[in-house]
Amino acid sequence: MFGDLSPHYRPLTVETIPAYVRSRAELRPIFGDDEIEAVEVGDGNLNLVFKVWVKSDPNRTVVLKQALPYVRLVGESWPLPPDRARIEAQALEIEYRLCPQHTVKVFFYDAQMYLTAMVNLNQHIIMRKGLIDGITYPLFAEHIGTFMARTLGHTSDLVLDYRTKKLEVARFINPELCKITEDLVFTEPYRRADGNRYHAEIEPQVLALQADEELREHVALMKEKFMTQAQALVHGDLHTGSIMVNQQETIVIDPEFAFYGPMGFDIGAVIANLFLSYASHEVRTQDPEKRAAFRRYLTNSVIQLWQVFVREFQPVWDQVDHINMPKGYQQHYMLRLLQDAAGFAACKMMRRVIGLAGVADIRGIEDVHERSVAASLALNIAVPLIKQRESFTQIEHLVEVAAAARPTYPWNG
Amino acid sequence: MFGDLSPHYRPLTVETIPAYVRSRAELRPIFGDDEIEAVEVGDGNLNLVFKVWVKSDPNRTVVLKQALPYVRLVGESWPLPPDRARIEAQALEIEYRLCPQHTVKVFFYDAQMYLTAMVNLNQHIIMRKGLIDGITYPLFAEHIGTFMARTLGHTSDLVLDYRTKKLEVARFINPELCKITEDLVFTEPYRRADGNRYHAEIEPQVLALQADEELREHVALMKEKFMTQAQALVHGDLHTGSIMVNQQETIVIDPEFAFYGPMGFDIGAVIANLFLSYASHEVRTQDPEKRAAFRRYLTNSVIQLWQVFVREFQPVWDQVDHINMPKGYQQHYMLRLLQDAAGFAACKMMRRVIGLAGVADIRGIEDVHERSVAASLALNIAVPLIKQRESFTQIEHLVEVAAAARPTYPWNG
Repeated sequence: MFGDLSPHYRPLTVETIPAYVRSRAELRPIFGDDEIEAVEVGDGNLNLVFKVWVKSDPNRTVVLKQALPYVRLVGESWPLPPDRARIEAQALEIEYRLCPQHTVKVFFYDAQMYLTAMVNLNQHIIMRKGLIDGITYPLFAEHIGTFMARTLGHTSDLVLDYRTKKLEVARFINPELCKITEDLVFTEPYRRADGNRYHAEIEPQVLALQADEELREHVALMKEKFMTQAQALVHGDLHTGSIMVNQQETIVIDPEFAFYGPMGFDIGAVIANLFLSYASHEVRTQDPEKRAAFRRYLTNSVIQLWQVFVREFQPVWDQVDHINMPKGYQQHYMLRLLQDAAGFAACKMMRRVIGLAGVADIRGIEDVHERSVAASLALNIAVPLIKQRESFTQIEHLVEVAAAARPTYPWNG
Repeated sequence: MFGDLSPHYRPLTVETIPAYVRSRAELRPIFGDDEIEAVEVGDGNLNLVFKVWVKSDPNRTVVLKQALPYVRLVGESWPLPPDRARIEAQALEIEYRLCPQHTVKVFFYDAQMYLTAMVNLNQHIIMRKGLIDGITYPLFAEHIGTFMARTLGHTSDLVLDYRTKKLEVARFINPELCKITEDLVFTEPYRRADGNRYHAEIEPQVLALQADEELREHVALMKEKFMTQAQALVHGDLHTGSIMVNQQETIVIDPEFAFYGPMGFDIGAVIANLFLSYASHEVRTQDPEKRAAFRRYLTNSVIQLWQVFVREFQPVWDQVDHINMPKGYQQHYMLRLLQDAAGFAACKMMRRVIGLAGVADIRGIEDVHERSVAASLALNIAVPLIKQRESFTQIEHLVEVAAAARPTYPWNG
């Protein structure tokens, strides 16, 4: 599972792509013998991503994603096993089987090259970019709620037989990528750490947060849950940068962080990113009416995605052995998911403001004072979200927390 | 992991033991070329167990334990992969490394034969037998508390690095044996099931328990935790039949149910079996003073084993990165273990009264009316133990529940 690099492995380049494409029979129906062009577009921190197309007909196209054996952002000094490419391909296979309409289609996985060939979603944009521009996606909540209910419900003990579930847990052991999350989401933001990347203007708020022992205990509980609760095959990185959208479609990509973890981690990731957008538009959208309208879209999306999740999860409950299941169990289970989602959402928000890997929604705000306002608001949404999570009994309670929060920056306002 | 049976596998017999023993160089220091005798003593439901000794010097002896590829009690119609023998040998290796003074020593594991050769504990008896006879083991609580603290603490995320922990979770995936627990401890006792084995006299109490939806929900939560919480390498079957004792020593055997699960499952198993003994002496010991004295020993053992567990767990906390750990986390963690232990203890008590596999403490009571009194009391300890577990803040609270319980049989007393 974590052996040596395949001897046939070599990182592709724009120059070597055409020969590689010719070598794969699976791609022949798309490319035939026509002249091919490619460009490297990976903007993430870990992988090579190539768009490949027929020069004379750019609609005949695929994406090739190849794992590098180190963290691209840092270089060979930070090695990272390319086994994550197998995890991603196998997770995509499962997600596609359970929810094809919202999962990117894979043509093949090349285990020698740690490479996945998949549909080029050239009619979609990364959702984060759309949200930054204030674009609404009216079908998003319906789609992502469905995606989560199907992929989480059907990989849990509620559906899988005892043996399959446990063998799947073993197959999706993903230590290196989980470790990144353990450090960047659950550890470093809540202490002094070299990796943190907040800007000086919000330091007083960050230091106060890091000195809040009650908050730190809540975070520790969420971290423990992340590290020990093998509830379902989670995507593991379901932020708005892992979701491709347009007005009709919502397609999930990039599950290389997938592992058996708590369902609330995925649900919380989506909610966190909608709330981060909410915070960012405190400054990104100056017109009060426009801002209110876009925020209504965001908070309604939070409410709706949970409602859809619950609705689409119902078939899972319907097939559970009801002789065995006590009456209150389903309601209690879903309530715990809601509260978990709130806790994980909070961690994911705090890390995006304080930690190493930010999000463009907030870090992309050019004016540092405006950026500080948005960052301050994001933290002020996150803290009560995790501290009060056990009092939440419906999704509206999370939205109320967000709506009631105000930025505390500037400090002497 | 769950492949075909090794081609070299053959179940040993008393007749084939001598040749097998000669074939193992590891046993030569014990047996030399001397004449060997063997007897099959397996009284469990799953395996062959041979005692082997030198005819002229019975102190030169070993135990050979060999897994059968089916449930011995039922026959070949209930197949059970002998992979559990590997799990047991590997768990014993870890337990011996962490706590040699309380783990049976293994000479070797023969992967071809699914056979473990270990020390013959011929100076010890099975603890359950001692407790049935009213024998006290003053060092037991100290020993078993130490065993649990070392083996659970040092296989958890508190000690293991992120990668080792996750690879260990995969190595100890143990689906078939976990399934037995899921069914027999957490499912069948709380519903009508062919496997249940309670006697008619206590049926009214069993039916009332099975109709108690609140209780069933509590059990479902414990089952979910058992199935999803990969907290530490648990023994998985730590009842008093898996513990060999004398007045000086306490030695744990038989971890074939080992897997990464909740620590409270082991702690609860020990507590459950002390409380089952407590219930059984309602009728086993008629003399009130003697009974009170033995029960004091049992309840003091429950209190002490927890106190020792906490004390021996402290070194684990001491080596945790304290910059990272919020102040209240340790206390909260230990509190949750206590409450988990109460919940799991309750399930293990109820299953021993109602389910397929009973314990001699209670089922061995010959007179059915006396047996019913003890069974009734055991259930009346178990039910508040699980229902009230979240209110328990110290071990004494569990003992108070046991001490306050009374048998409800006979019904019209």
